Amino acid sequence: MEILVYRPGKPKIIEGSTAADLPELLKDQSAVIWVDMESPTEADEQVLLDVFKFHPLTVEDCRENRHYPKIEEFEGYIYFIVHGVTADTSPDRFNTIELDGFLGPNYVITYHHEMFRSINNVKQLLRTTPIACQRGPAFLLHQILDQVVDFYSPVLDDFDGRIDRLEDDIFTLKRPNNQILLEIMDLKRSVLRLRRISGKQMDILHRMSRGEFSLIPEGMRPFYRDVYDHLVRVVDLAENYRDLISGSLEAYLSVVSNRLNEIMKVLTIFSAIMLPLTFIAGIYGMNFDNMPELHSRYGYYTVWIIMIVVAVGMLLFFKKRGWIGGSSREETPES
Amino acid sequence: MEILVYRPGKPKIIEGSTAADLPELLKDQSAVIWVDMESPTEADEQVLLDVFKFHPLTVEDCRENRHYPKIEEFEGYIYFIVHGVTADTSPDRFNTIELDGFLGPNYVITYHHEMFRSINNVKQLLRTTPIACQRGPAFLLHQILDQVVDFYSPVLDDFDGRIDRLEDDIFTLKRPNNQILLEIMDLKRSVLRLRRISGKQMDILHRMSRGEFSLIPEGMRPFYRDVYDHLVRVVDLAENYRDLISGSLEAYLSVVSNRLNEIMKVLTIFSAIMLPLTFIAGIYGMNFDNMPELHSRYGYYTVWIIMIVVAVGMLLFFKKRGWIGGSSREETPES
Amino acid sequence: MEILVYRPGKPKIIEGSTAADLPELLKDQSAVIWVDMESPTEADEQVLLDVFKFHPLTVEDCRENRHYPKIEEFEGYIYFIVHGVTADTSPDRFNTIELDGFLGPNYVITYHHEMFRSINNVKQLLRTTPIACQRGPAFLLHQILDQVVDFYSPVLDDFDGRIDRLEDDIFTLKRPNNQILLEIMDLKRSVLRLRRISGKQMDILHRMSRGEFSLIPEGMRPFYRDVYDHLVRVVDLAENYRDLISGSLEAYLSVVSNRLNEIMKVLTIFSAIMLPLTFIAGIYGMNFDNMPELHSRYGYYTVWIIMIVVAVGMLLFFKKRGWIGGSSREETPES
Amino acid sequence: MEILVYRPGKPKIIEGSTAADLPELLKDQSAVIWVDMESPTEADEQVLLDVFKFHPLTVEDCRENRHYPKIEEFEGYIYFIVHGVTADTSPDRFNTIELDGFLGPNYVITYHHEMFRSINNVKQLLRTTPIACQRGPAFLLHQILDQVVDFYSPVLDDFDGRIDRLEDDIFTLKRPNNQILLEIMDLKRSVLRLRRISGKQMDILHRMSRGEFSLIPEGMRPFYRDVYDHLVRVVDLAENYRDLISGSLEAYLSVVSNRLNEIMKVLTIFSAIMLPLTFIAGIYGMNFDNMPELHSRYGYYTVWIIMIVVAVGMLLFFKKRGWIGGSSREETPES
Amino acid sequence: MEILVYRPGKPKIIEGSTAADLPELLKDQSAVIWVDMESPTEADEQVLLDVFKFHPLTVEDCRENRHYPKIEEFEGYIYFIVHGVTADTSPDRFNTIELDGFLGPNYVITYHHEMFRSINNVKQLLRTTPIACQRGPAFLLHQILDQVVDFYSPVLDDFDGRIDRLEDDIFTLKRPNNQILLEIMDLKRSVLRLRRISGKQMDILHRMSRGEFSLIPEGMRPFYRDVYDHLVRVVDLAENYRDLISGSLEAYLSVVSNRLNEIMKVLTIFSAIMLPLTFIAGIYGMNFDNMPELHSRYGYYTVWIIMIVVAVGMLLFFKKRGWIGGSSREETPES
Repeated sequence: MEILVYRPGKPKIIEGSTAADLPELLKDQSAVIWVDMESPTEADEQVLLDVFKFHPLTVEDCRENRHYPKIEEFEGYIYFIVHGVTADTSPDRFNTIELDGFLGPNYVITYHHEMFRSINNVKQLLRTTPIACQRGPAFLLHQILDQVVDFYSPVLDDFDGRIDRLEDDIFTLKRPNNQILLEIMDLKRSVLRLRRISGKQMDILHRMSRGEFSLIPEGMRPFYRDVYDHLVRVVDLAENYRDLISGSLEAYLSVVSNRLNEIMKVLTIFSAIMLPLTFIAGIYGMNFDNMPELHSRYGYYTVWIIMIVVAVGMLLFFKKRGWIGGSSREETPES
Repeated sequence: MEILVYRPGKPKIIEGSTAADLPELLKDQSAVIWVDMESPTEADEQVLLDVFKFHPLTVEDCRENRHYPKIEEFEGYIYFIVHGVTADTSPDRFNTIELDGFLGPNYVITYHHEMFRSINNVKQLLRTTPIACQRGPAFLLHQILDQVVDFYSPVLDDFDGRIDRLEDDIFTLKRPNNQILLEIMDLKRSVLRLRRISGKQMDILHRMSRGEFSLIPEGMRPFYRDVYDHLVRVVDLAENYRDLISGSLEAYLSVVSNRLNEIMKVLTIFSAIMLPLTFIAGIYGMNFDNMPELHSRYGYYTVWIIMIVVAVGMLLFFKKRGWIGGSSREETPES
Repeated sequence: MEILVYRPGKPKIIEGSTAADLPELLKDQSAVIWVDMESPTEADEQVLLDVFKFHPLTVEDCRENRHYPKIEEFEGYIYFIVHGVTADTSPDRFNTIELDGFLGPNYVITYHHEMFRSINNVKQLLRTTPIACQRGPAFLLHQILDQVVDFYSPVLDDFDGRIDRLEDDIFTLKRPNNQILLEIMDLKRSVLRLRRISGKQMDILHRMSRGEFSLIPEGMRPFYRDVYDHLVRVVDLAENYRDLISGSLEAYLSVVSNRLNEIMKVLTIFSAIMLPLTFIAGIYGMNFDNMPELHSRYGYYTVWIIMIVVAVGMLLFFKKRGWIGGSSREETPES
Repeated sequence: MEILVYRPGKPKIIEGSTAADLPELLKDQSAVIWVDMESPTEADEQVLLDVFKFHPLTVEDCRENRHYPKIEEFEGYIYFIVHGVTADTSPDRFNTIELDGFLGPNYVITYHHEMFRSINNVKQLLRTTPIACQRGPAFLLHQILDQVVDFYSPVLDDFDGRIDRLEDDIFTLKRPNNQILLEIMDLKRSVLRLRRISGKQMDILHRMSRGEFSLIPEGMRPFYRDVYDHLVRVVDLAENYRDLISGSLEAYLSVVSNRLNEIMKVLTIFSAIMLPLTFIAGIYGMNFDNMPELHSRYGYYTVWIIMIVVAVGMLLFFKKRGWIGGSSREETPES
Repeated sequence: MEILVYRPGKPKIIEGSTAADLPELLKDQSAVIWVDMESPTEADEQVLLDVFKFHPLTVEDCRENRHYPKIEEFEGYIYFIVHGVTADTSPDRFNTIELDGFLGPNYVITYHHEMFRSINNVKQLLRTTPIACQRGPAFLLHQILDQVVDFYSPVLDDFDGRIDRLEDDIFTLKRPNNQILLEIMDLKRSVLRLRRISGKQMDILHRMSRGEFSLIPEGMRPFYRDVYDHLVRVVDLAENYRDLISGSLEAYLSVVSNRLNEIMKVLTIFSAIMLPLTFIAGIYGMNFDNMPELHSRYGYYTVWIIMIVVAVGMLLFFKKRGWIGGSSREETPES
C-alpha cells in the first residue's frame, strides 16, 4: 500500500504514510489522499473495511479478478472497475487487467493485482507537478482514467496494421491456407473483446460526465467528457475493425473459391485437349485386319494433322470462353 | 414439506414444524420462516392457497413445469420463477429445472419438483450458521438465488473447454465430418438456451436490485446487485460463446472448402501429367505401316526422354503456380 | 347470431334471444351478454351499428378478413382482433383465422367468418358451468382468449417434431435433395408467420394485463397476465424454432458440401490410381522395333509388379492424407 | 391550379375559381377549399408564399422532387410529403411519386409534378358526392391519403405473384442462370425501397392518428388510424417479402450447389467405370513376347467377363452410396 | 486568421480586422463577427483561450485532428465538430476533413487545418450579399453547415454510378477476378464510413433543430431542420448503397459459382464422351490371338458405328439433362 497525500499550499506530495496514519489524514477535508494498493495483502483489505467502511461486497469484488467494468454509488463514495490493456496485448490476443477503485470526498483508492502502467505514470506526474491535485480527488481520478484509456491507442494502431497486412496476405495467397483463417478468427475474437470492454467503459464514463454522481463536481465534467469522447472513438474503431475483419473473411473465402475455379479450369483444359487426342491414337492402335488408313502412305501424317487441328480448335474454344489468353493481366493479382 | 424457522436470539434453526403449525408461526413478524416443498403433494398446494392465500393462478403456475423465469408482485408477497442448471447439464445439452417461490414479509417459500442442489446447500448453511437468517427473509432469498447462480459457473467453464477442443478438431480434421457439424449445432442450441434463460433471470435480478419491490429493503440491494452482476457475466459469456461457435461453423466450412481445393489440386496435377504421357504412348501404339520413328534405333529411348521432359515441365508449371513444393510448411496445419 | 345471457343468481344460461331482444337485455347492467356472430349476415352487422353504436370503421374492419391482431379503445367499448390457428394448420403451412370482437360494460361480442373451435369450447363450458360468467364480461373474454391461445400448443409441438425429423433427414440424406430445401423454406415461412402473429397478439395481451383499459378491472389482470405469459412462451418457442430452422439450413448446405468432397475424393482416388497404370500399359503397347523389355522373358510379369507397386503406393499416399481407411467409423453418419 | 370549394348546405362543389379569388374564399371559415396544383407554374408557387404565407423552405421542398415522406407542423398549417406508387410500378422496379401538401383550418393544398391517380379519384368522388367534404378539410385529406395508400395494394399482390413464380423458376431451373440472380436482386431492391418508403409513411400516419396535430380533430382520428392500419399491413408485407426474397436467394444458391453435386457425380461415375476398363484393355494391348494369356483360347472372352464384373461392381458400389438408382423419384424436382 | 464583421445597416462586410480588434468588436451585441482560422498558428489558439475564454479542452480538441462529429454546450457558447468531404473523395476512398467551430451570441468561429471549400463559398456569398448576416450568427452558421452538407451530394451520385458499373462488371465478368472483389471491399468500407460520419452529423443537426440550444433561436429551426432533412437523405442513401454493395458481393459469389458449374459441365461432357470411346478403341487394340471381330471384314466400320452411336447417345443424355443445346439464349449473359 502506497499513500500519496497532497495538502493545498504544500510544494510537494507527502509520501511514506502508513495505514495507521490514514484515520488522521482523512480528517483533513481539504487534502487529497491517494491510496494505491498493488497486489494488496489481507491487512490492506482490512483497512478498506475498517477505516473506509466500504461495503464488504465491494471489497470482495476487488479481490476477485473477473468482473466487467462497472460503477456503483454508495453513501459517501463511488466504487468502480475499469480495465486497462496489458503490456503484452497484441491484436490477436487482446488482454486487459482490472483496476478497482473508490472515489471519496477527499480520497482516491486504486486496487490492482499487478503492476499497472497508467498508475505509475500518474504517480510520476504527481511527484513532479503536485499541483495536478489541486482540483480535488475527482480530477486525480480523471487523470488516472485518462492514462488508462490512452494506453488503448497503440493497440488500436496495431489492429490497423495487422488488418492491412492480413488483407495483403489474402490477395497474394499462393494456396488456401488455414493459417490465415486462424489469424482471422483470433483477430475477430480480440476485436469483439475490445468492443465489449470499451463499450462498458464508455457507459461508465458517460454516467460520470453527465453529472449523475455528486462526488464529481460540475466543473470536472468537461474533463470526464473528454475521456468519454476518447472511448467513443475506441468503440467506433473497434466496430470499424470488426467490419473490416468480417470483410476479410468474406474476401478470403472468395479468393479460395476463385482459386478452385482456376484449378478446375486447368484440369478441364488439359482433359478436353488430351482425351480426344488419346482417343484418336487409340483408334489407330486397333488391330483390325481391314483398316485401310493404316496402309495409306500418309495416314500417319494425316492423323498428326487431325490431332493438331483438334488441339488448336479446343484452345480456340477455351479462348473464346475467356478461359485462356488475355489472362496475363487479370491473373496478376492471384499468381 | 420442510419448515425451517429462525427466531431472533435463538441459537439454532427450529426444524420439524408441520403445515398445521404454520398459521401460528406466521403471526410472529420477527421470525424468518422458510417452507421448502420438494415434489409437493396436493395437500401442500392447499396450504399455499388456504394458509398463505396466494393467487390460484400462481399456485397453478408452480404445478406446471414449463415456465420461463419471471417475477410478479401481489399484495403482500412476490411470486418468482428462476431456473437452476440440472446436475447432468453439459455444453451440448443444457438443461434447467424450475424453482418457484414466494417471498413474504416474514417467510420464503420454495417449490420444486426435483431435488435442487442449491436449496440443499443453503439448508446446510442455515443449520450450521443460523445467524444468516438474522437479516430477514430477503437475505435468505438472496442466498438461495446466489447459490442458484453459482451453479452456472462450472457449466460456463465446460463450454469454454468444449469450444477450445472443437476448434482443435476443426483444424486437424482429416476428412469433412458430419460429427463436428452435429456438435457445433448442439453447442449452438445449448448456448442460445443458456443466453435466453440467463437473460430473463438477469432482468428479474435487475428489478429486484433497483428497489422496485418494497419487500426487498434498501439495505439488501447491494446483495441482489451482486447476484445481478454475476448474471451479467453469465449473459456476457453466453454471448461470447455464441460468437465463438458461429466462428467455429465458419471455420469448419472454410476448412472443408480448403480441403476440396487440396483434393482438386491433387486430381489436376495427376491428370495433367498422366494424360499427355498416355497420349504420347498412344501415338506410338498406332499400327500405321509407315511410321518412321518406330524403326529408328533410338526411337523408344527418345520417347522416354520426351515423356520425362513433359512430366518435369508440368511439375515446374504447377510449382510456379504454387500448387506443389514449398508446401511442406504451409500444409502442416491441414495434413 | 347466437345470444347467451347470464343473469346473476340464475342457474342456467339463457339462450335463444334474438337481435330484437338486445336493447332490452343491454339495459340490465348486472347481466353478462355474449353475442356470437358466425358468418354474420348484413342484418347482424346492422345490429352492431344500430344497437351497439359501434364506429362504422370497426364494423368494416370486422367484415374484411385481412387484418393483423390489434386492439383499440373507443368510448364505452374495446374493439379487438385476435388470430386463432385453423384446424388444418400444419408446420409447413401455418394458417390463422381472424376473430373480431367487442368488449363492453356488460357484453362481449365475437365475430368470425368460419366455425371457431375456441368459441365452441367456451360455449360448451358456459352451458355446463354458467358460474364462469359471474365475474363479468372481462372474465368471459379472458376465457375465450385463453382458449384461442391454448390451440397454439399442439401446433408448437408439431413444429418440434417436424424440426427433429428434418434434422434426421438432413444427416442421413443419400443425395442432395431439393425436397429438403423446399421443406426448410416452408417451415421457415410458417415460423416467421407464427412469430409475427403471436408477437402482435402478445402486445395486445400485454396492454390488457397492465391495466390500460378501464373495462378490464384490476382483479382480472392476473388472468390476462396468465394468457400473456402463455403467449410469451409461444413467441419464445417461435424464435427458438426460427433459430433451429436457420441452423438446419446451414447444416443442410454443409452436408451437401461434405458430400461434394466425398464425391471428389472418390474421383481423385480412382483417377490417380488408374491413370498411371494405364500409362504404363500404354508404354508397352508402343510398336517400336527396338524395345528390349518386350523381349525379356519376365518383362510382362515385371510390369505387373511395377503396376501393383504403383497402385499400392497411391493407396498408401491417400491413406496418409486421411482420404481412405479408418474411414468406416467416420463415414457412418453419411453413407 | 384547380380550386374546388365546398360550402355547407350547397348541393355541388364550386369549381373554376382562380388564384385571385383565394383571399376572399379563405375568409369563409366554414368552407372547405381544396387547391390542387399539378405541375405548378411559378405563379402558383407565388400564391403559396403570398396568399397562404407558407414558409419559403416548404415551398422550396415542394419544388424539389427528391424528399422522403415527412410531416412538419407550422403555425396554423401542417406541411406533409407522402409518396404514391407510379402507374408503371412493377415488382422489379418499384417507383413512387411525391405528393406535397398543406392542411390548414379550412383548406387542403396538394402539389405534384405529374398526374396523380389518387387525386383524380378523390376529385371524381367530390363531384358526385360533395357531402364528403362536410366533415372538414381533415376528412378530405384523409380521403386523399386513403386513396394514395389503396394504390399500394395491387403492387403488393404483384410482388406476391412474382415471388411465387420466382420460386418455381428456381426449383425447375435447368442450368444455373444469371437471369434469375438478376431478378432476385431487382426484387430485393424494390422491396427494400417499398419497405423504406412505407415505413416512413406509417410513422407520419401514426403521428396524425394519435392526436399530435390540433388541425386533425379527435373525431377524425379513427379514420387516420384506419389508413395507419393499412400502412402497418403494407410494411408487414414488405418485411415478409424481404424475408421470402432472401430465402429465394438461399434456395437459388443451394439449387446451384446441388446441381454441381449432380454434375460431379455423373463425372465420377463415368470416370470410375471407364478408367479401370481402359486400363484392362491397355494391359492386353502390350506387346510383350511372353504374355501367356494372349495365346489362351478363351483369353479374350475371359477379359470381357472381367470387364463386365468390374463395371457391374462399380455400379453396385455407387448404388450402395446412393449415387445412382432409386433416384428417379428424388431427381424429379430437379430434372 | 480572417475576420469578417457585419454591422446592421452597413452595406458591406468589414474585412481586415486583426486579433487585437476582437475585444472591441465583441462588445457590439448587434454585430455578427465571423472569425475563420485556416491552419491556425499558436497565437490564433491563444486568442480562443484569452479573448473568447473557451474551455482549454475544446481548444485542444480543435488542434487534434481525429475526432468524430459532436456538439457540446458551454456557458455562453456552443462547440461543434462537423466533417466535410475532401475534394479528392471518391467512392472507393471516402475521406473527410474536420471543421471545428464555436457559436456565440454575436460570433461564429470556424477552425480547420486545410482549405475548406464550403467556407470559401460562404465567404464569397457574404461579400456579395452581406444581408445574409442580418439574421444573426445562427443563420450564418446554418449557411456554413448547409454548404458542408451540399458537398456530400456529388459523392453520393458518384457512388450511384460506381455501383451500377460494378454490377455490370460482375455480370459480364469473363473470369473470376480478385480485382472486382477488391473494389467491392473498398466501396463497402467507404460506404460504412460515410454512413457513420453522416449519421453522427445527423444527430447533431437533429439536436440543433429541435430547440435544445438557446443560441439557436426558434425562428432558425426550420433552416436547421432543412439541413437535417438533407442529412437524413444522405444517411438513407448510404444505407441503400450499403445494401446494394452487399447484394453485389452476393451476386459476385453467385456468378463465380455459376462459372464453376459451367466449367465442370464442360469437363464432364468431354470426359463422358471420350472415355467410353477410348475404351472401345482400347478393346480392339488388345493382342489376343483369338479375337474374331478383328478378322471380320466390316469389324473396323462396325466399331466406328458403335462409337458414333455411343457419342450421340451421350450428347442426347446431356441434352435431356439440359446441359447442352437450347443454351445459346440462357448463356448469353455470361459468355
